[in-house]
Amino acid sequence: MEKKILLTEKEIPSHWYNIIASMPNKPLPPLHPGTRQPIGPEMLEPLFPMELIKQEVTGEKYVEIPDAVREAYKLYRPTPLYRAYGLEAALDTPAHIYYKYEGVSPSGSHKPNTAIPQAYYNKQQGVKRIVTETGAGQWGSALSFACNMFGLECEVYMVKVSYNQKPYRRIMMETFGAKVYASPSDHTESGRKILAADPHSPGSLGIAISEAIERAAPDPDTKYALGSVLNHVLLHQTVVGQEALIQMEKAGELPDIIVAPFGGGSNFAGLSFPFLRLNLEEGKKIRAIASEPLSCPKLTRGVFSYDFGDTIGMTPLLPMYTLGHEFVPASIHAGGLRYHGAGVIVSQLLKDKLIEARAHAQLECFEAGVKFARAEGIIPAPEATHALATVFQEAAKAREEGTRKTILFNLCGHGHFDMQAYGDYFAGKLEDHELTDAEISDLTSKLIAV
Amino acid sequence: MEKKILLTEKEIPSHWYNIIASMPNKPLPPLHPGTRQPIGPEMLEPLFPMELIKQEVTGEKYVEIPDAVREAYKLYRPTPLYRAYGLEAALDTPAHIYYKYEGVSPSGSHKPNTAIPQAYYNKQQGVKRIVTETGAGQWGSALSFACNMFGLECEVYMVKVSYNQKPYRRIMMETFGAKVYASPSDHTESGRKILAADPHSPGSLGIAISEAIERAAPDPDTKYALGSVLNHVLLHQTVVGQEALIQMEKAGELPDIIVAPFGGGSNFAGLSFPFLRLNLEEGKKIRAIASEPLSCPKLTRGVFSYDFGDTIGMTPLLPMYTLGHEFVPASIHAGGLRYHGAGVIVSQLLKDKLIEARAHAQLECFEAGVKFARAEGIIPAPEATHALATVFQEAAKAREEGTRKTILFNLCGHGHFDMQAYGDYFAGKLEDHELTDAEISDLTSKLIAV
Repeated sequence: MEKKILLTEKEIPSHWYNIIASMPNKPLPPLHPGTRQPIGPEMLEPLFPMELIKQEVTGEKYVEIPDAVREAYKLYRPTPLYRAYGLEAALDTPAHIYYKYEGVSPSGSHKPNTAIPQAYYNKQQGVKRIVTETGAGQWGSALSFACNMFGLECEVYMVKVSYNQKPYRRIMMETFGAKVYASPSDHTESGRKILAADPHSPGSLGIAISEAIERAAPDPDTKYALGSVLNHVLLHQTVVGQEALIQMEKAGELPDIIVAPFGGGSNFAGLSFPFLRLNLEEGKKIRAIASEPLSCPKLTRGVFSYDFGDTIGMTPLLPMYTLGHEFVPASIHAGGLRYHGAGVIVSQLLKDKLIEARAHAQLECFEAGVKFARAEGIIPAPEATHALATVFQEAAKAREEGTRKTILFNLCGHGHFDMQAYGDYFAGKLEDHELTDAEISDLTSKLIAV
Repeated sequence: MEKKILLTEKEIPSHWYNIIASMPNKPLPPLHPGTRQPIGPEMLEPLFPMELIKQEVTGEKYVEIPDAVREAYKLYRPTPLYRAYGLEAALDTPAHIYYKYEGVSPSGSHKPNTAIPQAYYNKQQGVKRIVTETGAGQWGSALSFACNMFGLECEVYMVKVSYNQKPYRRIMMETFGAKVYASPSDHTESGRKILAADPHSPGSLGIAISEAIERAAPDPDTKYALGSVLNHVLLHQTVVGQEALIQMEKAGELPDIIVAPFGGGSNFAGLSFPFLRLNLEEGKKIRAIASEPLSCPKLTRGVFSYDFGDTIGMTPLLPMYTLGHEFVPASIHAGGLRYHGAGVIVSQLLKDKLIEARAHAQLECFEAGVKFARAEGIIPAPEATHALATVFQEAAKAREEGTRKTILFNLCGHGHFDMQAYGDYFAGKLEDHELTDAEISDLTSKLIAV
């Protein structure tokens, strides 16, 4: 029996899939924070190159992947699909478990799937420099790699708690030629404002986004890039699910359940959207579950509301499940999931009950991560362990019910740069951070449900 | 054009290749340290299971890979062969450069290729526990992974300088369930002896081997495992070259030059031996170059002599190129290359001028490593950068001569656990450590050339 289902480079998808074309209810428009009127694409021009803005708003079902991007994808794509024989045995489950492994990319996660096209389109438009934020460092290292590939400068604001927890991530970005700052920093007005209020702020993705936007907006040679949340980012990530569709077909199975970790939505969207098309267009009933941390439960306990994408409030207002843009999540090791809101498309899908969400505690996730490492030989990133926690629950359910479910999950990255997190876990230093009802109600009372 | 040349799991080689069968001059026998008489296989029984001892002394040209081992190999094998288009452009060379990438394995290097069969044969014989040493941690993490896979306990003596430089490697071994000690330790007589002489000893592979052997020898439930040097280890690694042969054939080229880093010989042997068979049996003229550190130049400046494999002098005497078993190399970051001697087979091949060797300075290697990372997206392990330094020289020569050489090298592992080394390099903290003629003569004057 084959452990890995591989594709050739010729099978790298020719198009990304845009789920908006298939959605029964289209996402609500972003609003101008001042006028509260829907914004036009021109408002995004200071931040993004025109091709990405077009992709942000397009209704076309398929967007062609440029040849130069497909060429760059060949460095690591198609990524392997694994049958988790070892894990199935360890869990004693009748379920068939598959995982798409995105950790084979240069930066070790799925993030280059969008970093490469973003760098490419910026280069095409003559941009000189891209500024971005990063949580755990996975997005920052992906963009550093991609900018280096296309000859662009790269500047990264890294959430301070991760900057301190993961120094090797910073060195990786520097190896690819980027400049990296701990956020909140004193390089920006936004950073100084946060530091004045709390000099020991651990930072958050929302704060780092404010800093990066502030750096990019006034300079025509400099653009901004986001690693998740936005429509064009989710679009690029569908290369994952497009490949997985072919691979599952080769395996002779269609998943009953698809699971992916959830930060801003790109990881989850990337794997699940091409399968959800089968639900939306062909009446299939594949369940797609987004796995988030109990300490940052925007999907399971947030409110569907118009909110800012950043902490300071510089972005357009987006219709999303959110805990409020001022929410600073606890310093869990899954830095990539420490974001207050969910992408617009995913939020609409959840509102329409077309996808599901589930929250897991940090210790539960690391326990699953260690079990997976011992069964399959790959040490998962802390973000990926959230998907594992959901998979473990579904595998146990399959065993209890005696049903043979097929589960596919996104092993979105390896944990090579997160070993301190595993060390802390073994040393008993990790804690769970569940929000109380009072905390949730305090956070969400300021939000107006749509 | 294809960037990666992939094989299916069915193409995992069915046999390892034993170069001894093809060698014009067979290696000299190991000698008993007391009697100076050739030893029989029975002397190795306290340390190794019988199947590995048989492989150590076999003259058969091909040894079948057990099904259970091929099954375990499927976790990461066949490994990809890459055409280095990016590097060729960066070096502006007419050379065609290929690399076999072993960093896709669970522990991130070629080491599981032998860790898996070693754990398997020990388990078959009813052994409960394997003790070993590790330098940079690559061998220790490979064996930890393999022992966990076959339900064996694993105990690792890690060279102290690496233990301190690479804490994440230790955590990785612990994640796979192993116990890890910094060597020299106070757990063994050998360790205590070294510490008494030098409480600040950085350790060395030779010292760590002494400790591991001392732990294993008296206990019938415990065996020892070595990650390089010995014939059976080199044998297992030929799975790399056996695959690369098929892949180069698919690429439609035969290498003119093969390059691999050199510590004890397993990395170099693994890639080159199946190609050297073509020289020995079919009259081909492929050059095979072993790349070693200037700070540990046993191949380029050592003496072919009978010497111990460990520092204390517990092993049989082996006929090898060596700097003397008491030599403690400088604390370079390529911990896996800090070993005083070369494996017996490789030593004989070098003596017979059937292979070549070249030494490189640490800074030259890191410069090549950073250039490679920016060109190809993979950050190489410090060990692997030694092969790169040789490749860079040969690529430059091809450019100067205007000849289109085909170069194949072993990218034996990624540098995800060595980012501190890159950080130190960027911070200007790394030094070169070339031995003076007086130091070399002091080291080698005690050795008696064979």
